[in-house]
Amino acid sequence: MLYDIAIIGGGPAGYTAAELAGRRGLSVVLFEKNALGGVCLNEGCIPTKTLLYSAKTYQSAKDAAKYGISCNEVAFDFAKMMARKNKVVRKLVAGIRSKMTAANVEVVIGEATCDTTAAMPQISCNGNDYQAKKLMLCIGSETAVPPIAGLDATDYWTSREALQANELPESLTIIGGGVIGIEFAAFFNTLGCRVTVVEMLDEILGGMDKELSALLRTELSKRGIVFHLSTKVTAVKDRQITIEKDGETQLIESSRILLSVGRRPIVKGLKVNEFMQTENPNVYACGDITGYSMLAHTAVREAEIAVGHILGASEKMSYRAIPAVVYTSPEIAGVGKTEETLQKEGIAYIVKQLPMSYSGRFVAENELANGVCKILESTDGKILGVHLLGNPASELVVIAAMAIEKEWSSEDLKSIVFPHPTVGEIIKETL
Amino acid sequence: MLYDIAIIGGGPAGYTAAELAGRRGLSVVLFEKNALGGVCLNEGCIPTKTLLYSAKTYQSAKDAAKYGISCNEVAFDFAKMMARKNKVVRKLVAGIRSKMTAANVEVVIGEATCDTTAAMPQISCNGNDYQAKKLMLCIGSETAVPPIAGLDATDYWTSREALQANELPESLTIIGGGVIGIEFAAFFNTLGCRVTVVEMLDEILGGMDKELSALLRTELSKRGIVFHLSTKVTAVKDRQITIEKDGETQLIESSRILLSVGRRPIVKGLKVNEFMQTENPNVYACGDITGYSMLAHTAVREAEIAVGHILGASEKMSYRAIPAVVYTSPEIAGVGKTEETLQKEGIAYIVKQLPMSYSGRFVAENELANGVCKILESTDGKILGVHLLGNPASELVVIAAMAIEKEWSSEDLKSIVFPHPTVGEIIKETL
Repeated sequence: MLYDIAIIGGGPAGYTAAELAGRRGLSVVLFEKNALGGVCLNEGCIPTKTLLYSAKTYQSAKDAAKYGISCNEVAFDFAKMMARKNKVVRKLVAGIRSKMTAANVEVVIGEATCDTTAAMPQISCNGNDYQAKKLMLCIGSETAVPPIAGLDATDYWTSREALQANELPESLTIIGGGVIGIEFAAFFNTLGCRVTVVEMLDEILGGMDKELSALLRTELSKRGIVFHLSTKVTAVKDRQITIEKDGETQLIESSRILLSVGRRPIVKGLKVNEFMQTENPNVYACGDITGYSMLAHTAVREAEIAVGHILGASEKMSYRAIPAVVYTSPEIAGVGKTEETLQKEGIAYIVKQLPMSYSGRFVAENELANGVCKILESTDGKILGVHLLGNPASELVVIAAMAIEKEWSSEDLKSIVFPHPTVGEIIKETL
Repeated sequence: MLYDIAIIGGGPAGYTAAELAGRRGLSVVLFEKNALGGVCLNEGCIPTKTLLYSAKTYQSAKDAAKYGISCNEVAFDFAKMMARKNKVVRKLVAGIRSKMTAANVEVVIGEATCDTTAAMPQISCNGNDYQAKKLMLCIGSETAVPPIAGLDATDYWTSREALQANELPESLTIIGGGVIGIEFAAFFNTLGCRVTVVEMLDEILGGMDKELSALLRTELSKRGIVFHLSTKVTAVKDRQITIEKDGETQLIESSRILLSVGRRPIVKGLKVNEFMQTENPNVYACGDITGYSMLAHTAVREAEIAVGHILGASEKMSYRAIPAVVYTSPEIAGVGKTEETLQKEGIAYIVKQLPMSYSGRFVAENELANGVCKILESTDGKILGVHLLGNPASELVVIAAMAIEKEWSSEDLKSIVFPHPTVGEIIKETL
């Protein structure tokens, strides 16, 4: 059978593309070597957020007295938290499976190989051959493993193993203070594990607003997480990690090591145009494999653009307003330019900033906590970037994404009626 | 002294107008007879949401086992919850006071009287006279008291007294199942009070999407709240309430009665144009007094329009996208048209609807719960209304307000990159 579209990889890019194309009547075959949902659903976004929510529930119960509620003997059951996480993942994987069925997508579980240079793409999987008019490569990324002496011989965790832990380690050293590293740091710290984070750069969460990242780091330090910034891991042996800062060497001991220095595309050097086409116009690539942003929601949008293009649309991929979120509590979320990128690009900007405590809802729901709303505007009043520290930043940042994607001025956004009382009002208030 | 603007009433309309005008360099005097912040801050939105959050914290602790967390002896301290509520209100009132100072607004505490027919408005307060080029009436609304036999002689609560309760009543009958009544019903029910709601109409939350309102009612019924729909209260005597449905009479006994059949403008029949000007062009009216929507955020927007107009802008008030929120848990929020209004107006529409469990974040954070995202589209793809049941609907509905206010099509909203995983993604998914 000749398919309209063959898709390799059933993560957010692949399953989004498959569903869209299938619902539009195209014949689609989707190859997935592990589980539908990809890294995001099976060993990334969803399991981490599920566990973080358990940790948040634990912390809220411990802090309930702030709201006039008393709880004795607050405790967590690590095995139950993990079991619930597995159940959530299974439920959502099943949801994707039914979407594929509903969209008439043929799902093939197996490792596919293909020739991306052929005009008429040909795929082999489980000993069978498949032909398709268009091929989409949505094969994702893998954990980057840096050349650290002794690492190979060490039983270290990546995010995958951390999510399958059977018990809480007594102490944990996290190599890499990016988003993944910090989310795990917050999770294990909340449960009482001694956490140390080693970061090569001079601030955690590289790429996020630096001021907000520093505020979050300060808060996490107060909770007991130890940070080593501008610090390299030079060697690992068993439970001993050698770190180096300014030529000085130090040894850290911990019961577990989590490696989270980033992810890299499974195939390097794949180039795509604004419709997500590779050099072979019949072959598209979407998601982490393109190396652009390594975020599930970018992958989803790229898949929409690619399928749209196959169906004759001319919409181009825009990376102007891709939100980034850190799901700690408090959350950080940002979209558009940061001060750091604006300075690098030599673009003049104005900073508008308010503490979250200007929002009545935030005050009502966050005793003894604060946060920040920072908005960066061009000198002619366009919204260039919005950065939020405070819950529920993850849910609020899309407001800013809409404004930035559509190139709104702050006057445009001010004209919107924000419901009162909400935390989101802080955005209007800051403008 | 001749002021540029005199404002009577220090609620959301009044303090927003005062701050905006003051920051733009106008001389402003603001009269408030009770406390800055008005009903919203002192005895409305903010205190109820603060108490509801305490109730939510109590419920979350009781339900923590669903997330692998155990808490023994979860209890609430009613006096502490109330004390915290008072503290939050005081903090926010102080915040408004400092905003007034920062904007050089003269605040006069006292009951003001004025002649609204004079070309040059004159105001008297505390025995002093004030003159202003423009006058803004932001004097709000009051609890409507229906003609029920025996009510006058009864010691009933309105929302004001309910918020100042010293102890939890054993049972409570709420006359009126609108937003205020239902929020109080949810609050008192969560704390273990036996709650009965009597509503004249055939569904609670008149004005909100009827299907979602019914779903919330079903959920609240499961939690023990008793609803009498299409039912009138005909008489009240001490703790005995006589209700009538289809000609049948029934007696309800309860330790407290809460009257919440709605609010009405303090002055009736005030007409304003699209710039919030009354018949006297030097007199503006904003907020509940106009009788349009009785919502703090409408008041804020009206104040922005009025001050803008005084300063020479020509922006008109738009009521197209005023969100409405019910802060129960789960929350309901809606904006734009409902199916009911569209049918009444004879406008053709398409319903797109998904359960909230299509959002991975929702599944991760809401064990054994579900919700609904309902989007109403015109036949040519414009977004007419969005209605959400499920947390955090209050924070998400502004996404829809932006789209509806700017007359976006669903294609416009689909092109936005929603961060993953968020509950807000359900909106994009439903489109």
